[in-house]
Amino acid sequence: VLCNVDELFDREEFSAAPDSGWPDCFNSGVFVFRPSLKTYNLLLRFAAEHGSFDGGDQGLLNSFFSNWATADIGKHLPFLYNLSSSAVYTYIPAFNHFGRDAKVVHFLGATKPWNYKYNLQTKRVMQDGTTSGSFHQLSFLALWWNIYSASILPLLEKLQKMEESESEECKNEVAHSVSELSIHFKPEEPSPEDERRKWEEGRMDYMGKDAFEHIKKKLDAFL
Amino acid sequence: VLCNVDELFDREEFSAAPDSGWPDCFNSGVFVFRPSLKTYNLLLRFAAEHGSFDGGDQGLLNSFFSNWATADIGKHLPFLYNLSSSAVYTYIPAFNHFGRDAKVVHFLGATKPWNYKYNLQTKRVMQDGTTSGSFHQLSFLALWWNIYSASILPLLEKLQKMEESESEECKNEVAHSVSELSIHFKPEEPSPEDERRKWEEGRMDYMGKDAFEHIKKKLDAFL
Repeated sequence: VLCNVDELFDREEFSAAPDSGWPDCFNSGVFVFRPSLKTYNLLLRFAAEHGSFDGGDQGLLNSFFSNWATADIGKHLPFLYNLSSSAVYTYIPAFNHFGRDAKVVHFLGATKPWNYKYNLQTKRVMQDGTTSGSFHQLSFLALWWNIYSASILPLLEKLQKMEESESEECKNEVAHSVSELSIHFKPEEPSPEDERRKWEEGRMDYMGKDAFEHIKKKLDAFL
Repeated sequence: VLCNVDELFDREEFSAAPDSGWPDCFNSGVFVFRPSLKTYNLLLRFAAEHGSFDGGDQGLLNSFFSNWATADIGKHLPFLYNLSSSAVYTYIPAFNHFGRDAKVVHFLGATKPWNYKYNLQTKRVMQDGTTSGSFHQLSFLALWWNIYSASILPLLEKLQKMEESESEECKNEVAHSVSELSIHFKPEEPSPEDERRKWEEGRMDYMGKDAFEHIKKKLDAFL
């Protein structure tokens, strides 16, 4: 999120930006909704009855809010609120023309900023073999890493020192949210990288381990 | 064009489908407009004053009809009226879910159907080295080649025979439109393939040979 986006609170449910892959679907990376137990339960029922055409939240939400593409232009958030960093390369002149006003950048796809190598001295992001086939705008990657190294890394180091000295009080006080960030930085899930890639590419195991009932179980464990 | 699309005549100027690269722009491959000398002259003046951010018609039209993304949902044609055959692979589950209702398929990008090899016996499109990096839906490519080989190729062969027998009357009578098709089939422009690729990728020579004045000169020569 590159700037304040409070103006989104003036939008109605369900507002979202178009998906750059299939633009009559919205991308569910950024959306405006009204918290509601009623809608939540309707969504659960819809999921149980119809599933999701992509096996994920985006397919489900697009089927549920199915008139997004045709009903109300006010519910189309500008693409700049959910700019997929790969779309940059699909239509470079448009990015050059409109991109400076980007408000939210979405690192869409299997390769995330933390999968790149970053040189703390030169402050440059390096691309190697493992990130080939991924096309994030280098300026956005550099921005992510600058923020991470300047604002998050020092907190993580502090946390690690605290863990070593085992001062429990202090630890709980400061670093709850930071530790959550670190989950993303060093993923500890047992699932291999290519399973994730499959999921990101929309080739998930609907009927097996990625079935809705398993996802719901995991959600319930969290909530 | 896969089916009758007369219902487009019920739409207002300027209606178009979103571009899958930058979905707050419309793709200018399919659009509804009202023929008007006034609009034509306004467009010429706009082009002379502001140019086109992508050096082509799409950038110009998007700047001219600049409220398309925000003003009127009725002017958003469904993506199925301008389905870019490469978008298919960006969000496969959406294509699987919605793609069967495709009305117009757009072979977007540098590699066109006639750049593929086609086996007339097996009726299959073959991909080789020259078409790598291109991701057209094979079923759409096969459809194009089936139509071409069944309906166009026999006319071309007839034309060639007529040319050999030099019966001028008969030739003029039948084959004006067919000969135009053949231009596309065997491109005779002196410009090399990579120049075209650059153009398609949005990296054109705005200031030099691709400058608007040169394009206008060419247009004037045609009109």
